[in-house]
Amino acid sequence: MADAVEIVEVAPRDGFQPILPWIPTATKIDFLRRLAAAGLRRIEIGSFVSPTAIPQLRDGAALIEAAAGIPGLRPQVLVPTAKRARDAVAAGARFLVYVLSASEAHNRSNVRRSVAESVEDYARMLDALPAEVELRINLATAFDCPFDGKMAVGPVLELIGRLAALRPDVEICPCDTTGRATPDHVATLIAAARACCPQVSAWAYHAHDTYGMGLATTWAAHGAGVRVFDAAAGGLGGCPFAPGATGNVATEDVVWMFERMGIATGVDVAALLPVAADAAALPGATAGGRARFALLGSEKQASREMVGGCSA
Amino acid sequence: MADAVEIVEVAPRDGFQPILPWIPTATKIDFLRRLAAAGLRRIEIGSFVSPTAIPQLRDGAALIEAAAGIPGLRPQVLVPTAKRARDAVAAGARFLVYVLSASEAHNRSNVRRSVAESVEDYARMLDALPAEVELRINLATAFDCPFDGKMAVGPVLELIGRLAALRPDVEICPCDTTGRATPDHVATLIAAARACCPQVSAWAYHAHDTYGMGLATTWAAHGAGVRVFDAAAGGLGGCPFAPGATGNVATEDVVWMFERMGIATGVDVAALLPVAADAAALPGATAGGRARFALLGSEKQASREMVGGCSA
Repeated sequence: MADAVEIVEVAPRDGFQPILPWIPTATKIDFLRRLAAAGLRRIEIGSFVSPTAIPQLRDGAALIEAAAGIPGLRPQVLVPTAKRARDAVAAGARFLVYVLSASEAHNRSNVRRSVAESVEDYARMLDALPAEVELRINLATAFDCPFDGKMAVGPVLELIGRLAALRPDVEICPCDTTGRATPDHVATLIAAARACCPQVSAWAYHAHDTYGMGLATTWAAHGAGVRVFDAAAGGLGGCPFAPGATGNVATEDVVWMFERMGIATGVDVAALLPVAADAAALPGATAGGRARFALLGSEKQASREMVGGCSA
Repeated sequence: MADAVEIVEVAPRDGFQPILPWIPTATKIDFLRRLAAAGLRRIEIGSFVSPTAIPQLRDGAALIEAAAGIPGLRPQVLVPTAKRARDAVAAGARFLVYVLSASEAHNRSNVRRSVAESVEDYARMLDALPAEVELRINLATAFDCPFDGKMAVGPVLELIGRLAALRPDVEICPCDTTGRATPDHVATLIAAARACCPQVSAWAYHAHDTYGMGLATTWAAHGAGVRVFDAAAGGLGGCPFAPGATGNVATEDVVWMFERMGIATGVDVAALLPVAADAAALPGATAGGRARFALLGSEKQASREMVGGCSA
């Protein structure tokens, strides 16, 4: 095996988040069990955010408790502030994802404060964080912002440097929030960040597939040295108000691509497919992904290809 | 502008081919006009193949005649044999795409002969071809075969070398027929082919998006030096017997990715989008692509993003 990567399953957080109809906690727990059984051992199980802003994720504490009972599962919980981090740790979280945005406009929209205030808040969180709590930083809009457009590499690098200086043993994950990051941009930023901040313990990448570039940028990030990749089963995460516009890159697509290249993911794609199909079929979900259809329809497809004709 | 690429629109051939309900010739001509008006000046307008195997493409001669009247259009016509090439040239074709497969099983299924027989037939065609006719070779299953699986690079390179030796001033296009080519494989084969056959005048790449890797492999081919890319408006080309399984990489996705990186395509994506949407809506079509939904729904999406919350 040439190589190995770690897939972080984010459907239970980023994927469920825009779904308006309530997904019962028991259903969420069942997804966690089935995802873990398919080999997805690291799952973003939820977040501690305003239940008014994101009512779907208001059962974070119950999910932390349930996740502790799933063998081999390494759950991570997203938090946008030091205060929410305290709540999550009090509820039993042992792996936090602190989210802030590289762009001022998105950070204000997302967490109602400036980027500098989020960095200060992050520093305050570090001061209070128990030593055993693992940490990732999700840097939203690291490449493109829905309000400010394409992000210049220099200031984003500078922000990463400031965050890395506060604590080196974190995983830093530049996120393509809008799906408009191009593979060259992803490769450039991540290679530069790794060169600038060699002390950072790990780098991750979070792709959206809104414009079809999810696998292209994932592969570009791999080329730049990333070995941890976010993805959502069924390609969940689409925006319910933009019909057909999809969200996170699909876990089954990412797993299929890496495994096809001989890069181990630890995920059993055959076990994942029915879970991904069930996630995609959740009421109110906007699903994405390609491999699911191709693999589930492959027998029919093979018989069609037998017809011959003149394909290229 | 850092760079430029040429997009070859293949919806009228590879995209329409699997559509079972007849698309009237006048409708096809209207698509050619609108695609050309959007900046797609090189279009694979049809093929000369068995009308029994592919009844949808039986109006090749009429399309050649109509294409000649569309300003700026450079139409290419696919042919699987020297005999069909003769027919196409007699009908007025001035740019032929000769298709053969790298794999024995697919070539037998596609054109009912061995690969060696196709190479001999190609040589015979060259002997009879008027000097003014431009030529491309589409090498199907260059990476993966629905029957034989993943193709080893060595024998495919050897085949490309044999074809290149017969005539250097051709464009050679390794095709990912199944959509299962990975970006590393595409980069490796094309870089090696370019190194082995420097006399070949141009290299192209033909992606399918069946597993979501269409843009990833397109970008990988660009990295290996390719500057000519096939794509189909609306991501047409899916298999009607595998619901949801999509076909060619969508032209609008490819154009959007390249333009976003500052690489000129000559295509006006705003003019292309309604054409792509109409192609995707053809009765019996299996459409694909992502950018179309994101761009057509972008206003609604922007208002959703204003809601805030905690996106990454």
